Amino acid sequence: MTDKGKILCVLFLVIATLASAQKQDNSLWHTVSDSVQRLEGQGWENIGFNRLPDKAENSVRDAVWNLSSNSAGLGVRFETDADTIIVQYEVGGGLAMEHMPATGVSGVDLYVKNGKDWLWARGERVFNDTIRYTFELNALSKGIHEHQLLFPLYNNIKTLQVGVKGGSSFRFLPPRPEKPVVVYGTSIAQGACASRPGMAWTNILSRKLDYPVVNLGFSGNGRLEPEVIDLINEIDASVFVLDCLPNLSPNEKRTKEEIQKRIRESVLSLRKKHPQTPILLVQHAGYSDGPVDTSRKKVYETLNSWMTESFDALKRDGFEKMYLLTKAEIGLSNDAFVDGTHPTDLGMAQYAAAYEKILEPLVRQ
Amino acid sequence: MTDKGKILCVLFLVIATLASAQKQDNSLWHTVSDSVQRLEGQGWENIGFNRLPDKAENSVRDAVWNLSSNSAGLGVRFETDADTIIVQYEVGGGLAMEHMPATGVSGVDLYVKNGKDWLWARGERVFNDTIRYTFELNALSKGIHEHQLLFPLYNNIKTLQVGVKGGSSFRFLPPRPEKPVVVYGTSIAQGACASRPGMAWTNILSRKLDYPVVNLGFSGNGRLEPEVIDLINEIDASVFVLDCLPNLSPNEKRTKEEIQKRIRESVLSLRKKHPQTPILLVQHAGYSDGPVDTSRKKVYETLNSWMTESFDALKRDGFEKMYLLTKAEIGLSNDAFVDGTHPTDLGMAQYAAAYEKILEPLVRQ
Repeated sequence: MTDKGKILCVLFLVIATLASAQKQDNSLWHTVSDSVQRLEGQGWENIGFNRLPDKAENSVRDAVWNLSSNSAGLGVRFETDADTIIVQYEVGGGLAMEHMPATGVSGVDLYVKNGKDWLWARGERVFNDTIRYTFELNALSKGIHEHQLLFPLYNNIKTLQVGVKGGSSFRFLPPRPEKPVVVYGTSIAQGACASRPGMAWTNILSRKLDYPVVNLGFSGNGRLEPEVIDLINEIDASVFVLDCLPNLSPNEKRTKEEIQKRIRESVLSLRKKHPQTPILLVQHAGYSDGPVDTSRKKVYETLNSWMTESFDALKRDGFEKMYLLTKAEIGLSNDAFVDGTHPTDLGMAQYAAAYEKILEPLVRQ
Repeated sequence: MTDKGKILCVLFLVIATLASAQKQDNSLWHTVSDSVQRLEGQGWENIGFNRLPDKAENSVRDAVWNLSSNSAGLGVRFETDADTIIVQYEVGGGLAMEHMPATGVSGVDLYVKNGKDWLWARGERVFNDTIRYTFELNALSKGIHEHQLLFPLYNNIKTLQVGVKGGSSFRFLPPRPEKPVVVYGTSIAQGACASRPGMAWTNILSRKLDYPVVNLGFSGNGRLEPEVIDLINEIDASVFVLDCLPNLSPNEKRTKEEIQKRIRESVLSLRKKHPQTPILLVQHAGYSDGPVDTSRKKVYETLNSWMTESFDALKRDGFEKMYLLTKAEIGLSNDAFVDGTHPTDLGMAQYAAAYEKILEPLVRQ
């Protein structure tokens, strides 16, 4: 390279660096992990983007531990007067599933509070190594607004930043102080197969009740295990929800005796530490192909009869503040599922409505 | 290779061929293109898996022609007494989109008639070079049942076979004889972003009305163009539906005058050839982020006011059997979309309900 060439080359690099710096300067980036000790929907402090505390790695099965790094039900609130908001983040897992799009598995959702309503904001999204959503909210009144950012349902966040233009106000908000509804469940509770995070039923419920919900749904692994119940028992909940039947299909080991033992011991354990906290047991919501497939119909009918027996026995034994949400009350329609097992946004809306009805009076008491 | 080696090699090939033949023999394969002249939801005969006739290639824009090979709204009916049904097919396009899963873009849906109800059947699916769904329907009463197989919403089928066990009865059914509802629309009519084919609003509507619907939704390209209207005009429809506003966002060329001209000329053309056929004009259903984004709100509000003016002018000019479906009547909820523009299954159910209400009396007359 000639000297002239070298000088041009250096000059180009300087200009490129300046341009890049200027581009960065144009937005002020706020990194969640620098600023937030506890996320919305998190049961413990200082656990990053996880849903279980570090110590759980030694007590729960690997599958549960790995799934606990999926950011289902997690999010962060912030307030800003910016009308352009950028969210950029990196994830560790696959972007999509065959029956659940990337926007649900790996996307984020932003809602903004306008009076009493939470309005949904559209993000222009780019799914590259860094995922980036750019939100325009220019119709809101001038001034500071509260925002709620919901994280991916089936991916794990490595790092996440929220950017606003220089000169805008910005601060992350601490999670709400109310005692959360704590949900221990399966893939359905985790959010399969919502089209975007805001449509997981736990997140719909949180909006409807305007109340925090801790999502401990573990896809394929919500099994009423004592080591998970022990962890849940550490949370000062407003209600404990046990919605695990879809991961407890009867087999040689999962006999009637075994399933009923898990239900009863879960309740005993929670009740011992939280004598006054309502506990909601939930039936299997069914498979939409039950009417055409005998074996599949038998699974949920069997589990639901066992659950009803367990619930009745607990009531007979004098347990109070016990509630049961039945398949009929959940009332999923024939077309509410994508694959017979996992609800779509239509099914999620139906799930959330049923939960809201039974939980609304319980969280307010 | 030694002689012994050669003999062993030939022997292996013979055994492999026999084994393969036996596997094939176990199912009898019925190839749609061998047996069916016109699919359900198709406006013309002998056009393969396309939605427009061959001649359209010379008249419509390339984008419309290419999209017409997407099998949205197409399907086939058959009757069989088999309780295991396999559907295998090859497709030509990408399997999924970021905001729409493979099950919707490239999957199939099977419904089976049980009395008056269409029950949904679950397929165990494999997305490989050949896509295969295996359905078990062992809870139905013995005997022959009618089935409805719905094709992918955003992919094009190269070849498709339905397999049943040897000894089972099987025959493809001709499409229903009723005059179809013909829908000219956009990506939303084509089916974005339903989680599976059965949840596109045109397919929900077809089930609800128990009536054929021809889906001429062209993603991004439903623009009330005269060359497409000319083709639609060839179909002996029960109702013509024009739901194109979401692809007609105002710009320099798409002035008020131009949009209103397209609406009026589309109606004039259809009315000239079909003086008695009801024509349904449809407003833009809105964007769920309208309340936070001024420019997006302006798009649908502007288009809808232009549409109302056009509709009122047509009525004033004495056109009869003209109907308008308004944004308010479609009534999509704030959470009915995946990206602010395209409805999820929740939005699709709401769309279909609005269409059913206005179309039910029209198709029966």
